[in-house]
Amino acid sequence: MLIEIIVIGNELISGETRDLNGWYASGCLLSFGLEVNEITTVGDNYETLSAVLKRAVGRSDFVVVTGGLGPTDDDLTTETAATVLDRPLCCNKSLLNHIRKSAQKLGPLWSPSLEKLAWLPRGARILDPNRNICGYSLSKGNSQLYFLPGVPEQMRELMDRFVIPDILRRYKPASVPRHRKLRVYGLSESHIADVFKGLRDELKGAMFGFYPSFPENHITITVRGEDESGIERELTRAEDKIRDILGSYVFASGEKTMEEVIGELLMEREMTLSVAESCTGGLIGHRLTSVSGSSQYFERGAIVYSNRSKVEMLGVRQKTIDSHGAVSDQTVREMAVGVQKAADTDMGLAVTGIAGPLGGTTDKPVGTVFIGLSVDRKVFSGRYLFSGDRDKIKRASAHMALDWVRRYLHGYPFIPGI
Amino acid sequence: MLIEIIVIGNELISGETRDLNGWYASGCLLSFGLEVNEITTVGDNYETLSAVLKRAVGRSDFVVVTGGLGPTDDDLTTETAATVLDRPLCCNKSLLNHIRKSAQKLGPLWSPSLEKLAWLPRGARILDPNRNICGYSLSKGNSQLYFLPGVPEQMRELMDRFVIPDILRRYKPASVPRHRKLRVYGLSESHIADVFKGLRDELKGAMFGFYPSFPENHITITVRGEDESGIERELTRAEDKIRDILGSYVFASGEKTMEEVIGELLMEREMTLSVAESCTGGLIGHRLTSVSGSSQYFERGAIVYSNRSKVEMLGVRQKTIDSHGAVSDQTVREMAVGVQKAADTDMGLAVTGIAGPLGGTTDKPVGTVFIGLSVDRKVFSGRYLFSGDRDKIKRASAHMALDWVRRYLHGYPFIPGI
Repeated sequence: MLIEIIVIGNELISGETRDLNGWYASGCLLSFGLEVNEITTVGDNYETLSAVLKRAVGRSDFVVVTGGLGPTDDDLTTETAATVLDRPLCCNKSLLNHIRKSAQKLGPLWSPSLEKLAWLPRGARILDPNRNICGYSLSKGNSQLYFLPGVPEQMRELMDRFVIPDILRRYKPASVPRHRKLRVYGLSESHIADVFKGLRDELKGAMFGFYPSFPENHITITVRGEDESGIERELTRAEDKIRDILGSYVFASGEKTMEEVIGELLMEREMTLSVAESCTGGLIGHRLTSVSGSSQYFERGAIVYSNRSKVEMLGVRQKTIDSHGAVSDQTVREMAVGVQKAADTDMGLAVTGIAGPLGGTTDKPVGTVFIGLSVDRKVFSGRYLFSGDRDKIKRASAHMALDWVRRYLHGYPFIPGI
Repeated sequence: MLIEIIVIGNELISGETRDLNGWYASGCLLSFGLEVNEITTVGDNYETLSAVLKRAVGRSDFVVVTGGLGPTDDDLTTETAATVLDRPLCCNKSLLNHIRKSAQKLGPLWSPSLEKLAWLPRGARILDPNRNICGYSLSKGNSQLYFLPGVPEQMRELMDRFVIPDILRRYKPASVPRHRKLRVYGLSESHIADVFKGLRDELKGAMFGFYPSFPENHITITVRGEDESGIERELTRAEDKIRDILGSYVFASGEKTMEEVIGELLMEREMTLSVAESCTGGLIGHRLTSVSGSSQYFERGAIVYSNRSKVEMLGVRQKTIDSHGAVSDQTVREMAVGVQKAADTDMGLAVTGIAGPLGGTTDKPVGTVFIGLSVDRKVFSGRYLFSGDRDKIKRASAHMALDWVRRYLHGYPFIPGI
């Protein structure tokens, strides 16, 4: 059984855009035990696309094609499929009606070129009749072909709702791999790799993968088999073993983010949080508020970019800034206390540092960051040195600050600084 | 002349990792006028890889292969190439020496499996003799093949230093394409497409591409030719024409971001800015402070997530919130005035809205967002309805708010809301 994916778009072979669709489709198929043989990326070019489609139909049982279905002149996928598969374009009346109706909603965004979308290769089965770019499937010889739009959200929805179920109706994989992902923060990749050297022999039924995802490291555990409960048992055994060894460095599993972990902890304990951000410039607030329901525990944030704002918004003493600097242990402690007091929250979290590329000194080079946490009438603070460009230093700082909240609430020690 | 790229790695077809190498190689080749025909992504699998290599040798003049050159058991590229190209593996003595020498440096990371790296297909020309994973090139029939490591930094260096110069020695592109990118915000893709219908005839020397990059749309102009000054003239003619038609919707060219545009405008005018964020939760501050030197014009931000913080930090009247709601025109105006006054800046920018998925009402559904701007003793405000999930609504709101600053400073009208 062969499955292949064809990803179409000039922007993908010009270096303009990184592919999201081939990546998503192959991962999604594999999670159902359907292994992809090959992903081909080509531009919106009639000849190349013809050759690739012809080759695919000759050899693969399932072909997932994405991109080139839009209304503009450079979208050639449907025309090419019609010619190569010998299925002349026909106008689908109900689709045309749907497109015309959507004209009213679109108002000035409506354009007559959208009507082109109603012309599909003869025999095409529409995947989602409620979309202008509906997606469709076709069979040719022994091949099933699926044509999906290139816009990632649209492509994903059609993939999940129509393509996967349709393939699984036609082909049942012998064994399905099950995965678990553990999210680790604060340990280097090589440190994790060393830990695993001994584990591989002990956990022979499981396969492990390591994937850095800045500033986190992700560990995947994969077990294959036919017996669901046996697979689950093996996965749990491996997960427990890894958690035993890595302890507090595993902060979540699956797709759960650091800010979601913190949100759950704060809700459980009915505690509230406020933040004072200098070098992170609002990133911590942005991350906390990316969680739905965060207004229950996140009260406010102060983005204190100037010294004046540190004094006015948080009550940091001008004297402290004058004698120790805005980037100092003393200042971050007053920031944490100040925001907690002003917001009247259970915790006050503060960050000040030098994100660069300018502003570093010998004593405090670029990447120097102080974190402060005021909670339960105590104030904690620490100094870190992060590396990378401005964006990386901001992201590393925000992650470490959020990890402080998690570690405090769990009673774990903070990751040591310098 | 055909060029293709083969990207190898299980992690790339399992959905674990997004490809960086095919993307980089194709963009890099194109910038030298070398258009890539096809990118093929396959796993570390002997049979699939054999078939793909055979096919490539039969048809392409240049084949860039990346990945699968490492020392571990699943790295199969070199063995497969040796068999498919009929070039038995030979041990390269000087490479072996180099690898053994590096053993001292590596210390405990040394493993005898590294010696495998010294065995290359007969006739392979080493690209960089100073690396253990050296990269090599081979010729077979009319094809030149380049084998590069999968680690992106290593791959890029070999690509830039060896592969591109080698290809250009063997093949001189008739013409080199030059690109310009215009960044558009506030117009739909189909609207832009319609505008271009008429333009294509008028600007025959240029090719256009459209790439949505939420919430922006990017237009690329490509002109090919031999005469640099002629190309530049044609690019400028096309750019001017597009700017004429799209006017204030073109906010930048090249890689310049909205926050950089605003930063430059504020610096030029020696003006300062403060922000008050409710639903964006710090994202506007984060974006403004992602620009180095932003402390010159960005004074502070208030993340006013609770009603109390709106009153306490910005002086919004409790009465206003009680009678009109925290998400209202009246509140956003008081927020903008309040933050401007507190920060004593030239401009005060404010956003309040419902990012969802909960909290929507019939009058104010999820996605309802108010923007306010206080400047020059005037206060402007507007209401928008954005769609998508929480993250998209936050990003759309932040972008629109930043665009207000740009439009005000340029004297353009704001994009109309609802």
